[in-house]
Amino acid sequence: MRKLKVAMIGGGGSGSFFGKVHLRAVSLDGTREVTAGVLRHDPKAALEAAEEWGIRGFPDIATMVKAWKAGDVELDYAVVTTPNFAHYAAAKSCLEAGLPVLCEKPMTLTVAEAESLAKLVKKTGLPFVLAHTYTGHPMMMFAKTLVADGAIGEVRKAESWYNQGWLATALEKTGQQQASWRTDPKRTGISNCGGDIGTHAFIAATWVTGLAVRKVSARLNIFVEGRKLDDDFNVIGELSNGGTALITATQIAIGYKNDNGFRIYGTKGSLEWHQERAETLLVRRGTADETYWIGAGGYPASVASYLRAPSGHHEDFFEALANLHTTMERLIRRRNGEEGIPEPFAHPGVEEGVAGMRFVKAAVESSKKKGAWTKV
Amino acid sequence: MRKLKVAMIGGGGSGSFFGKVHLRAVSLDGTREVTAGVLRHDPKAALEAAEEWGIRGFPDIATMVKAWKAGDVELDYAVVTTPNFAHYAAAKSCLEAGLPVLCEKPMTLTVAEAESLAKLVKKTGLPFVLAHTYTGHPMMMFAKTLVADGAIGEVRKAESWYNQGWLATALEKTGQQQASWRTDPKRTGISNCGGDIGTHAFIAATWVTGLAVRKVSARLNIFVEGRKLDDDFNVIGELSNGGTALITATQIAIGYKNDNGFRIYGTKGSLEWHQERAETLLVRRGTADETYWIGAGGYPASVASYLRAPSGHHEDFFEALANLHTTMERLIRRRNGEEGIPEPFAHPGVEEGVAGMRFVKAAVESSKKKGAWTKV
Amino acid sequence: MRKLKVAMIGGGGSGSFFGKVHLRAVSLDGTREVTAGVLRHDPKAALEAAEEWGIRGFPDIATMVKAWKAGDVELDYAVVTTPNFAHYAAAKSCLEAGLPVLCEKPMTLTVAEAESLAKLVKKTGLPFVLAHTYTGHPMMMFAKTLVADGAIGEVRKAESWYNQGWLATALEKTGQQQASWRTDPKRTGISNCGGDIGTHAFIAATWVTGLAVRKVSARLNIFVEGRKLDDDFNVIGELSNGGTALITATQIAIGYKNDNGFRIYGTKGSLEWHQERAETLLVRRGTADETYWIGAGGYPASVASYLRAPSGHHEDFFEALANLHTTMERLIRRRNGEEGIPEPFAHPGVEEGVAGMRFVKAAVESSKKKGAWTKV
Amino acid sequence: MRKLKVAMIGGGGSGSFFGKVHLRAVSLDGTREVTAGVLRHDPKAALEAAEEWGIRGFPDIATMVKAWKAGDVELDYAVVTTPNFAHYAAAKSCLEAGLPVLCEKPMTLTVAEAESLAKLVKKTGLPFVLAHTYTGHPMMMFAKTLVADGAIGEVRKAESWYNQGWLATALEKTGQQQASWRTDPKRTGISNCGGDIGTHAFIAATWVTGLAVRKVSARLNIFVEGRKLDDDFNVIGELSNGGTALITATQIAIGYKNDNGFRIYGTKGSLEWHQERAETLLVRRGTADETYWIGAGGYPASVASYLRAPSGHHEDFFEALANLHTTMERLIRRRNGEEGIPEPFAHPGVEEGVAGMRFVKAAVESSKKKGAWTKV
Repeated sequence: MRKLKVAMIGGGGSGSFFGKVHLRAVSLDGTREVTAGVLRHDPKAALEAAEEWGIRGFPDIATMVKAWKAGDVELDYAVVTTPNFAHYAAAKSCLEAGLPVLCEKPMTLTVAEAESLAKLVKKTGLPFVLAHTYTGHPMMMFAKTLVADGAIGEVRKAESWYNQGWLATALEKTGQQQASWRTDPKRTGISNCGGDIGTHAFIAATWVTGLAVRKVSARLNIFVEGRKLDDDFNVIGELSNGGTALITATQIAIGYKNDNGFRIYGTKGSLEWHQERAETLLVRRGTADETYWIGAGGYPASVASYLRAPSGHHEDFFEALANLHTTMERLIRRRNGEEGIPEPFAHPGVEEGVAGMRFVKAAVESSKKKGAWTKV
Repeated sequence: MRKLKVAMIGGGGSGSFFGKVHLRAVSLDGTREVTAGVLRHDPKAALEAAEEWGIRGFPDIATMVKAWKAGDVELDYAVVTTPNFAHYAAAKSCLEAGLPVLCEKPMTLTVAEAESLAKLVKKTGLPFVLAHTYTGHPMMMFAKTLVADGAIGEVRKAESWYNQGWLATALEKTGQQQASWRTDPKRTGISNCGGDIGTHAFIAATWVTGLAVRKVSARLNIFVEGRKLDDDFNVIGELSNGGTALITATQIAIGYKNDNGFRIYGTKGSLEWHQERAETLLVRRGTADETYWIGAGGYPASVASYLRAPSGHHEDFFEALANLHTTMERLIRRRNGEEGIPEPFAHPGVEEGVAGMRFVKAAVESSKKKGAWTKV
Repeated sequence: MRKLKVAMIGGGGSGSFFGKVHLRAVSLDGTREVTAGVLRHDPKAALEAAEEWGIRGFPDIATMVKAWKAGDVELDYAVVTTPNFAHYAAAKSCLEAGLPVLCEKPMTLTVAEAESLAKLVKKTGLPFVLAHTYTGHPMMMFAKTLVADGAIGEVRKAESWYNQGWLATALEKTGQQQASWRTDPKRTGISNCGGDIGTHAFIAATWVTGLAVRKVSARLNIFVEGRKLDDDFNVIGELSNGGTALITATQIAIGYKNDNGFRIYGTKGSLEWHQERAETLLVRRGTADETYWIGAGGYPASVASYLRAPSGHHEDFFEALANLHTTMERLIRRRNGEEGIPEPFAHPGVEEGVAGMRFVKAAVESSKKKGAWTKV
Repeated sequence: MRKLKVAMIGGGGSGSFFGKVHLRAVSLDGTREVTAGVLRHDPKAALEAAEEWGIRGFPDIATMVKAWKAGDVELDYAVVTTPNFAHYAAAKSCLEAGLPVLCEKPMTLTVAEAESLAKLVKKTGLPFVLAHTYTGHPMMMFAKTLVADGAIGEVRKAESWYNQGWLATALEKTGQQQASWRTDPKRTGISNCGGDIGTHAFIAATWVTGLAVRKVSARLNIFVEGRKLDDDFNVIGELSNGGTALITATQIAIGYKNDNGFRIYGTKGSLEWHQERAETLLVRRGTADETYWIGAGGYPASVASYLRAPSGHHEDFFEALANLHTTMERLIRRRNGEEGIPEPFAHPGVEEGVAGMRFVKAAVESSKKKGAWTKV
């Protein structure tokens, strides 16, 4: 089986961590490989980084897609993993050239950009996957299928959260790169905490339940003095079926590494999942609590087809992200007419990206209006 | 050492469970005993129940306090454990007669009653303890001392919750007594979920941090059709130091038994506690998460003086409630001039009761006004 | 309902902890009370301790049982909670006088004493309960009923353990009373760790499964220099159905408080329980792990009849011990012809005490013979 | 940086799972790639499998190493992942030709083979890594450094275990390939459970502590009728410092997926680790239990240099195995004189393989001699 060739856009900076994360997620299965890229914004730095990575470097995206169109380089899709502000232009360039895109989240800087991108994806019909990594966890995929199958009845309430502590102090003043661009409105947009991790909580509440958030009442806080964007994000939302969503995120929870998770309460049962214990899903619907384990069965074929390891051997962060690449791979191979390719899972795409952008925008507005209910 | 004599008001109904719970909490240490009571509202039933319990029965409170004043029955304090609507009158009768009171929560039916009771307690100077059982858990007491000692710095955010599932269906229609009075506005007041368990979450956020909730934005839901009071309660609050509180409670979380707990995030560290794992307190302030265990040390003498069992042997629900009775016992014995009585812990009293009533009222109002920020 | 009157033998020393523990377990339900006792070995100290406890004191057991036979004091049963070496004489005196006994474990100092006591119990037909506290945990009782009902098929293997760390240093040299008598062969017998906590692990493996240990291969260690008795106890046993038991205990596991528990593997499923998380029982027999919670149902009436608190409100150490007293209470009330008394659970009695003594003896012998398989 | 070229020997069968696991572990970091192999024993099948994998296939090892020596194929090391019986010959062929080997465990079929291989490794001086995957977990590496640094004092006791349930029934009779060869003495050797997973428990007890097991007393069981090799493995061992090891493994623990782990008790503290929660290490040495998290610091640079993901984003099974490949990669690159290559961690090699083989052999012999202490 021919390996898919992947181009990486961004991710080559010395302080970047997601570039290498995607490299590993692409490489893991031995069916895809990163072979080219525009790893940094500065053309010279981009070429140097590519050499260091051992891939074919391009000084900019335009040059790369041109080379691809000219048959000068073989590419199957691009990964966009630049800082937020550059997502839109990068994704746009690829899509316009006909190259499928797997894009980091938040999808764009503004709702307008997001909507424009959605139109482009629709027009081109190209595969587009949004890198909501945690949705690649098999137990989160399993949760989605359980809700869809009615296992917990009608959803009444969704609680989702994302607690981190790394921005509890003014880390950005130390020059730490991740902290610097995330707290800078120019590079990050209107929300730091909401956009960076609140969107993950949003996806947990909506993607798993298959529901939208219709309106929100929010309180965003800036706890660290001198910061310009929120580092704490609290939203009560109304779901499209009339239910309630409680979506919170914080970066000032000292000692919490990556405490992302959700609880979904339905008329017949409940689901609970924690990213820091990603391998188990807790289902409550009878006398005993049920704990499902990755690799130990119970989930449908749509989930099972993504698993790599036997029972008890966990797959975690890299494998979850690799699953999004697998979805992209399946979309592309099926599009290419390859046979025997399993069905791709319904991972988040451009529509979820638009919804996430609108959600953050509504939350920011509601918070400014002292929590007034605001339409998403 | 002479055993304290305790009168029980309420708690004798066949469907009641808290009467026997208090009986056990009173009895546990062998230093207090229930010897008299008005166990039911109906005079005849009250006398019958007392006979069944093997204690001296009275047909009503007035008769009991009269007998006590006349030296006809020995009493040290009364436990009020009637349905909510009757708390006020019962506590008032005892206090006016000079008898200390340990009262179930929510303290009264209305804020006005609560304020009136607070005045009475102040005027009489009598010991008054509010039965916020969970504050009797040594690890919750430890948490309060840690915050007071500055172990986690200044509090930025308090999250507290209380998830139950027992009212996920219309249990009150089956005649179940607990469900019937809790969902009935006449016997319960303006809020079911908020008053019953939201107040526990409120106490966790305020008593542990030593902060007040200044104003709230709330969304209360009624998920079960035909119900007149909230079965789901979501509040974003502003703390008296400008911090944020997230206080939620629900009775529709199927499979959740008594998932009460809190996380407190400060400028130097975080605390986390779960009632269903009451014996441990999680502290995060350095590289490793720290887990403290009941019986294994680390806490100050003010907490240690309440412990009964050696390391690894847990104390739980009955012992937590018994600790509130211990606090009442210490207050009384010190008042009586007994020597060598350890210091009573600062468990919730009448002021916390007033605050809780005001909090629930403000939340109900905010919810009616579509989440408008409402002063507590 | 008349309260049962309980005599306490031992437990009044200043360094004793189990006296007060039994006092609480007796008192908890309000249906039993400690009213008399011989709280210390020294007659004068015994009378002083009784006064301090507020109960009727006796200088020695003979005097007490004489007074009881003469109708001078009302008694229903005695609790024997002296150091190990004195169990036998105390229990014997009571039983010979016709007084039922709830006895601490290990039951006696020697196997011969244990067998003699068993004969006496058989001859008198008196209720006798062995204070294996952990068997009073509802989830451990539930485990026993599950095995008996065939829920996990035929038992193949039982693993049970008891890890503590409190004797990791020569605590006995500091004069600490608990450490002193436990490490002293004269007061404790042939084994410290095995007798003190190995017996708990033994009961977990045998009482829960309903199987005996037929023969053992053991390695006992003394890790702390200068100690005369084992502080580490490792046994591989053969069960009466041909299965294998792995029974271990240690007192040198620094930081482990009271890590007692078991795993039982059968042909159809497995059970797992931890004393430090006593409120849950883990059952594995299908795709999902099942977690049962105290108060949340699933267990038979024989277990349910012992529960005091609603779902989610845990009962723990004192309640477990109180359950053994409840069993004693039920035995006595039924013997007295009282009606409506629920069936007592099959808690450990004198036969289990004999088996425990034989087990420890065989383990000590096997260890001396370098692990040679030794008949129990 | 040039990617290392890896040859895979074995792992290409349709029922094999470890071939693909190694493929992923090799590929993950993008610095190594599988480019050639002898994927199956049958020459024709080997070539077909290679084509399917998209790598250069060889009909047998001799042909492959010949081609390599001739400069006809570029190779840096070989991965041996055949069934146990073929490890020896495969590893020998590679080493004799000068090709480094990363070999699956148990290392060989017999102790004699293991010793012969050890001599060969010593003679050639070639890098040799034994695929004890779990030693690649950063928290297990951290545990080893803690013991070496004296953080828990002198080791007194090591408990290690490996509980699985997949062979609780006669799965081998259904034709399941993994079950068939593991229970077949010809392909597996003298022990199934001991060799397959008991060796993992053995490594946990010895590699982490830096101690050897000097002698053993064992009880091996065959619980499933008709089986020829052990499916349950229990060993009490004496450590080289006089301490005790408790090493157990079972394949009949229904519902247990991969419950591998250890507890190490020292004179100053304790360590605890569970493979199914591989991301945390529990250290007990003071008042509070300490929980260390992967990515959250506390470990030395020797461990940190292996980490790929930020705090809270777990690395698990594939990453652990990849870490062994990283160690091999570092050994090779340093040998090649590349600069800036971090120090390889002391992962298990040929000596640990010999020790494991001797341990299993001694356990089998002791069990036959009814548990007699047997020298390792």
